[in-house]
Formats: sequence, structure tokens, C-alpha cells
Amino acid sequence: MNYISIQNIDSLEKWVKQALKIKKKPLKNKKLGKNKTLGMLFFNSSLRTRLSTQKAALNLGMNVMVMNFTTEGWTLEFEDGAVMNSGSSEHIKEAAAVVSQYCDIIAIRAFAGLIDKEKDNAEIVLSGFLKHATVPIVNMESATGHPLQSLADAITMAEHKTKHKPKVVLSWAPHPKALPQAVANSFVEMMQLQDAEFVITHPEGYELNSEITKDSKIEYDQNKAFENADFIYTKNWSNYNEYGKITNTDSNWTVTAEKMKLTNNAKFMHCLPVRRNVIVTDEVLDSENSIVIEQANNRTYAAQVVLQKILKSSPTPPKEGLFKSKSAK
Amino acid sequence: MNYISIQNIDSLEKWVKQALKIKKKPLKNKKLGKNKTLGMLFFNSSLRTRLSTQKAALNLGMNVMVMNFTTEGWTLEFEDGAVMNSGSSEHIKEAAAVVSQYCDIIAIRAFAGLIDKEKDNAEIVLSGFLKHATVPIVNMESATGHPLQSLADAITMAEHKTKHKPKVVLSWAPHPKALPQAVANSFVEMMQLQDAEFVITHPEGYELNSEITKDSKIEYDQNKAFENADFIYTKNWSNYNEYGKITNTDSNWTVTAEKMKLTNNAKFMHCLPVRRNVIVTDEVLDSENSIVIEQANNRTYAAQVVLQKILKSSPTPPKEGLFKSKSAK
Amino acid sequence: MNYISIQNIDSLEKWVKQALKIKKKPLKNKKLGKNKTLGMLFFNSSLRTRLSTQKAALNLGMNVMVMNFTTEGWTLEFEDGAVMNSGSSEHIKEAAAVVSQYCDIIAIRAFAGLIDKEKDNAEIVLSGFLKHATVPIVNMESATGHPLQSLADAITMAEHKTKHKPKVVLSWAPHPKALPQAVANSFVEMMQLQDAEFVITHPEGYELNSEITKDSKIEYDQNKAFENADFIYTKNWSNYNEYGKITNTDSNWTVTAEKMKLTNNAKFMHCLPVRRNVIVTDEVLDSENSIVIEQANNRTYAAQVVLQKILKSSPTPPKEGLFKSKSAK
Repeated sequence: MNYISIQNIDSLEKWVKQALKIKKKPLKNKKLGKNKTLGMLFFNSSLRTRLSTQKAALNLGMNVMVMNFTTEGWTLEFEDGAVMNSGSSEHIKEAAAVVSQYCDIIAIRAFAGLIDKEKDNAEIVLSGFLKHATVPIVNMESATGHPLQSLADAITMAEHKTKHKPKVVLSWAPHPKALPQAVANSFVEMMQLQDAEFVITHPEGYELNSEITKDSKIEYDQNKAFENADFIYTKNWSNYNEYGKITNTDSNWTVTAEKMKLTNNAKFMHCLPVRRNVIVTDEVLDSENSIVIEQANNRTYAAQVVLQKILKSSPTPPKEGLFKSKSAK
Repeated sequence: MNYISIQNIDSLEKWVKQALKIKKKPLKNKKLGKNKTLGMLFFNSSLRTRLSTQKAALNLGMNVMVMNFTTEGWTLEFEDGAVMNSGSSEHIKEAAAVVSQYCDIIAIRAFAGLIDKEKDNAEIVLSGFLKHATVPIVNMESATGHPLQSLADAITMAEHKTKHKPKVVLSWAPHPKALPQAVANSFVEMMQLQDAEFVITHPEGYELNSEITKDSKIEYDQNKAFENADFIYTKNWSNYNEYGKITNTDSNWTVTAEKMKLTNNAKFMHCLPVRRNVIVTDEVLDSENSIVIEQANNRTYAAQVVLQKILKSSPTPPKEGLFKSKSAK
Repeated sequence: MNYISIQNIDSLEKWVKQALKIKKKPLKNKKLGKNKTLGMLFFNSSLRTRLSTQKAALNLGMNVMVMNFTTEGWTLEFEDGAVMNSGSSEHIKEAAAVVSQYCDIIAIRAFAGLIDKEKDNAEIVLSGFLKHATVPIVNMESATGHPLQSLADAITMAEHKTKHKPKVVLSWAPHPKALPQAVANSFVEMMQLQDAEFVITHPEGYELNSEITKDSKIEYDQNKAFENADFIYTKNWSNYNEYGKITNTDSNWTVTAEKMKLTNNAKFMHCLPVRRNVIVTDEVLDSENSIVIEQANNRTYAAQVVLQKILKSSPTPPKEGLFKSKSAK
């Protein structure tokens, strides 16, 4: 079993319940990961993901090997048939097959380049590992998705919701740098599995991939979207149509206390890191209604439910004497 | 309980005794740190501190998560109310609160920038974590202090002193690069807790912060200072008055065998790394009287006594089912 | 005991047998490394070595501390008597003695610079640690050798050979960048300990150090060398005579399916990372006869047999109360 996207969750409700149970007794399955190794491969910066995923693995008794691939390893080639006589030193075929032999689970972070839409949508790093690795893969944020974040978001909303069918708003906000759509994409996909009144709001032209948003409601008037909302989830993304461009920096989209007043005393959410007074004002972020720190805390339990499920679904139970000796073929 | 400066030591004598006990049986408290996690955050290079603090945590059975913050994470903002529309991606408020949720103790290294005295004295990184973290903080060298080093120095002197009240000299020495005053500051503060004849010697103009040196004796004549000394502790620092400048590179201040002859067969100490034949000659550093390697060894036991005290002082004992689920508010 | 070169293997046959036993039950000696710490110091990039050596240590129950020396630590000085008033911050004398106090075994990776032959042959990093460290040293690829790789190669050949005295060919292949001779050197030395028909093939002028190749057979005609071979081990190296230069990029030396047909259905080997369609064609690398992934897998067991032997040969058994407190003198 892999955890590549929200689509890998068979029952979001059950996963959230399980995560909340884990949160109460995080060390209960300390023996499950014994003598199992999680390899964490970073192609990009990471704070929450780096530490929470590691912490989840430690809670399960796993060994963890962390590697910053781009600075500590070799430049990878992803193209089949490439004549590797210039930049790249190693092909994903070998890298993935080799790392699979040292790790029981491989977790990967590889952001969108935001230059070539097709390439980003192809998820070349993640799908390269998926194709050539021989152990389960966990997505620690790829070009188009961040399903560990969205699972943590679902857990956090479950803890805070006060009605069966809350109104949840995903609101774009301005940002000085071009950011990927990954977090927004997975949040949308996760919301599509929930019983909620879900609204996406962003400036016209900032539509996410319609294959992801499907029939989710889009409202271009942020104020109207905020009306009566129970959760405001804010996140910047760069333009998906004019791919990777910043075509709007309108500070009217910043989430302010005034706008929050339009809501039904909504909780404020963001995946972090967040640019204060650009995405959201201090006043909102420091208010009682901000639950961003709890979201980050739940990253541990989201990762732990994923790792636990993978460990339990492992076809070959960890037995001495049956230790893997696999070929790449 | 935090370990931010030498002032956090309630009884230096007792701490040193405890460290020496730990040194004899470093694994005696292997269960104390079980299922506890030390997060080590580096904003600067580190060899001894990196490895000895990690080793201390391992001796206590702790998990360790190491992160080079500047290369592996996000650029932090420390100013309250900042409009974060340029360089920094994440505010210390979030970073500190978030990391607190994954770690039971956070250790931080963040050197002085040596450009803005006021900013360095404000200890923006360390005090940012102190203010916004919800777990104990350990100083692995900050802008103005290096209390783990000075505790190791106290341990080393206790092992080597042959009289109750030794003469201890802190001697400035030349160096090609501008270095912080942190090690010297903490050494001075630590000596002020000891029964010793303590003398600081440096070129005129190279006075340390007088709020730290207080009434510690200053002698501008290095030869005179060395007379009859039992310990020579050498360290370069950049000018504190002409802040961060190198206003003296006089090689007459290099510690030589000839100068050591003025002493009472003094032990030679330095926190390392040391520039040979600039700070001190090979002859002195390679002599029987040099105890710099033992100082470095005692870094492990200094860190261990600190971690042990923090673990024992922890208000909530480590219990499954009572695992923390804290909010940042 | 150190593991610096193939020469440190007392009986290659016995080591290979032991590694194959370990491969069957890698966790059998999980208690051997308890409370022992492996320090892994990297002066260069690493994927396989980084992860497999770490994995081997974990299989033995050791703690591991990984450090990328050049980015996370201080620039080292290796010259005796140097006046350290320019680039380097710390002398190998201190660095090696200090790290020895935190680790029970130190593993080091430090490649050839390929500019100064004499300096590379002097192995300044590795021999600096050897001279000044007080704990066993393991070579994770030095300027002139990569004995963990060659031990893994020997293990892999033992698993695949179908006759007592196979024909083994070490074939040079072209590469766009200047690479060290380390892997080739250790492979030659390892083959010299085997009962095999061993042939080295490379363009004229690309002779390896004759002090290493000794009387090993050299054949300048690659096709002729391949005839009837049971193993083709391919590796690029830069010119040893015109030191560090690339004087040949002849793609006729690329290993192709056509050339493999000259062999006795030979297994294809390479240490990885490998540049596809430069060193070897996709067709060969992806064929049934390619055993490069298995070679990489055996890196774990090669490292484990080395670490196990060192742990068992340790003069002072790990005992509380007898914990090391060593001086550098």
C-alpha cells in the first residue's frame, strides 16, 4: 500500500477516528515498527513534515534515515532512455530500486518546479519512485498534492466542528512568491470526501486544475464566500492557467478580522509556514479562533495513521530469516 | 526549566559533581529519556556541540531529531508585527510553537551576526524560541553565551585543579576572522561562581560587555596576567566596543611556550576549534599541559547533566495516555 | 582494528561467508552494538554508502550520528605545523581526537581532489583521522580506495559464480566528468585475493597505479577482454598518468549488448551511480544479467561484517563503569 494522494484513503471517517485514537495513546503501537526503517528523502525544504513524520515513525518504534537528496546525494535523471552525458549522475531506476533495499517505507518530498505544467502534473519524482521502488511510498508533498497535510486538516476539523455539515471555505490569499497548488489540491480532494458545504474562493483566473475541483463550488467574491462559514482555510497558490505565474497580489484578499466577522465565528486554518500580514493579519492568526498550531500538531498523527496502516498491510511480516533479498527486476 | 545561561545553574559545585558522577556511569539513566525527543536546531555550524549533545541525549535513551534550520527549513522572521512580504517565510511564533509539539526539549544554536550589537544582545533567535516555545530550551551557543561550553570547562577545571583557589586567566588571542564574545562571556560568568583568582587579559579596547565582566579583574599586560596562573583559558573575540570589528591582530598575544613558563605549570584550555600557531603554538597545544581534548570530552557530560535535570524537572511525567496535546495559546 | 583497505581483510573467503550468513539473519547480532555509536563523517556526497552503512549499524543495534563535515562543521587543516591564519578553522589533530570521544567507530568518506596526485595518494583526510583518532576507522571511500564497495562486490560474485575460477573483467568506460580511481583500485586489490582469471581492460594511457595493479593482466582490446568472461565489472576512472585528466571519451568503450554477447553469458556489475547509455546501454543494465541492484543490496552486509568484526575486536568490552575517559595524548 502507498500513500500518494487523498484517493488512497478508503474511509476518511475511519482514518480520522483512528488518528484521534492514536493521538490519545501515541506509543501504543511502539512495537509495530520495530526493526523497520523509514527512509525520508527530501528534494525540498521542510520543517513540519520533516519533524512530524520522523516523530510519527519514532512513536511506532521505527528507525529513521533522513537524506536531503539534492545536497547529500546525486542529481537524478528521470527520463527513460536518456543518454546521461551531462548533468544527472544517477537514474531514478537505480536510485529507487537501491533505496528500497535499505528501507521498509520510503517517504518523498519533491515540489512542483512551476515552470513546466505537464512535467509537474506528471509528478516525475514521485511517480519515478512509485514505478521503480519495491517498497511502499509516502508522499510528503509532491508537485500536485500534499495528502499528509490534508489528512491532518481533516483530523483538526473533526476535533473542532460543532455541526454535522459545517461550511468550509478554501480561500486564496496573496503571496510574494510563486507557490505550488499542492496543498490546495489535496484540501479540495479531502473536502470532496466530507459531508460539508464546501466553497473555494479566489480571484477570477486563479482556478485550480478543474480535474481536481470537479463540481466543487467556486465563488469569486471572497466576502460572500466567508458568510456564515465555520472554517476558513487559507492558502496561496500561483496561477494554474498562466502556469506558475503571479498574476494577482491584491491585498484585499488578505484574511482580516473584519472578514472573519462575516463568518459564523469560524476557525482559521493554514498549513504553515504562513506569511503574517500578507496571507492573514496578526489579529486573526493570534486570535482564539486560529487553530493553525493544532493543525501542525495533528501532522504527527496523520503521518502515524498512514505509517501504521502501511506497516500492518505489509505483505511479508518482519521475520528474521525471511529478510528481503530482492532483485530489481 | 531552561538552560539559557550560566545563571540557570543553581549550584555550580553540585552540577559539576553530578557531571563527574555521570562521566563514571554515563548510561545509568538510560531509561530517563525513554520516548522523549530532543530537537536540535542549528542556525550555524557545529562539530562538538552537535555530536556531544546528541551523544548525551542517546546516553539518556532519548530520541534525537537534528535539523539544520537555515538550509533544511524556512527563513524565520523575528519581528513582531512584520509584514512578511519579502525574505522570511515563517514567523518564530509559529515555528517555535510547532516544533514544541514534536519535541520534549529544543536545543538551539544561533550565533551573533556581529553587525548589530543591540540585535545580538537581544538574542532574537533564542529569546524568540523562549517566548513562543512550550517546552524547555537549551542554549547550544547563542549570540552572547555558550553555557554548555562553560559548564564543561568547570567540569574540566574541577578534574585538574590542585588547589582550592586556583589562579585562572582568560586570555584573548588574535584571530583572522571576527568571532563572537559568547564563549568568553559564559566563561566569565561561570568563573564568577567559582572560588578562584580570576583575571581577564586582552588588549586595551577589547573589553567585553561590562555588564557581564562586572568587577572581574582586567589586566592589559598578558605577561603579568600569566604570572603564577594555574589555568590559561584562551579565546579570541572581536571588539565589543567597536562592535564586531577586528582592531587588533597582534601576534604577541599568541600563547607560546615561553609565556606558559610564566605560569605555575598551568593547564592550557580552549573551547575548540582552535587555529594553531595563531591562537596558540603547536608546542603548547601538543604539550602535556594542554587539556583541550578533555574539555571537549566533558561537553557530553555537561550536556547530559543539563538534559537530565530538565527531564527530571519536567512537570508532566512521561505517561502514555497523558501525552501532550497542547495549543499554542 | 580499522577497515581502511582491502588489505585489512585477513581472509576474503571467510568474510564473504560471514556476510552471506548475516544476509540471512541480519538482526541476529542486534545486541552487539548496543550503546555503541557509529559516527559517519561525509566530506562528499553519498547515497548507497550513507544509507547502507547506517542500515548495517542499525541492524547491529548501534546508535548512528551522521555529519556532513564540510557544510555542517568546520574546514579542516591537515598540514603539520600550519599557521592557520587563512581558510581552515580546525586542525585534524583536534577534530579526530574530539570525535573519537563521542563515537566508538568513525566512518569517513573523503574523495580524491584529482588535482594533486601526491596529495591524493597520501590520503590526507583518512590518514589524518587514522593518525589522530583513538577509535577504529572505516573507509567509506577515500581518495584511492573504496573497500566497502569491493567487499560487497566479492559477496555478490560469490552468490552468482557458477564455476570455481570465473573470468572477471574490469572494464573502463567513458564518462563526462573526471572520476577518482578509488573503486577500480579496490576492485583490483580484491580480485587479487580471489581465485579467478582477472583481466583489466582500458584504453592505452589509462593505466591505474601500477603499485596496485601489480601483475594483474591488462588487455587494451576490450572485445578480446570480454571473450568468455563470466563477470563484466564496468567503471570509469580519470587518467592516472595525466593525473585527473579526461583524455578519452571514446563511446566505443560503452558496454553494449553486442559486447556482452562476446562473454560467457556474463553478469554485468557496476558500483552505481551509473550514467545510462554512456557507461552502459539501457539494454544491458535492464537485462536479466545485470546484478547492480544486488551489489547495492550487499553493501549493507559488507558494512555489517566490517562493523561486527570491529565491535568484536574492540579491546575494551562495553561495560558501564568502564566507560572511556581518554586523553588525546
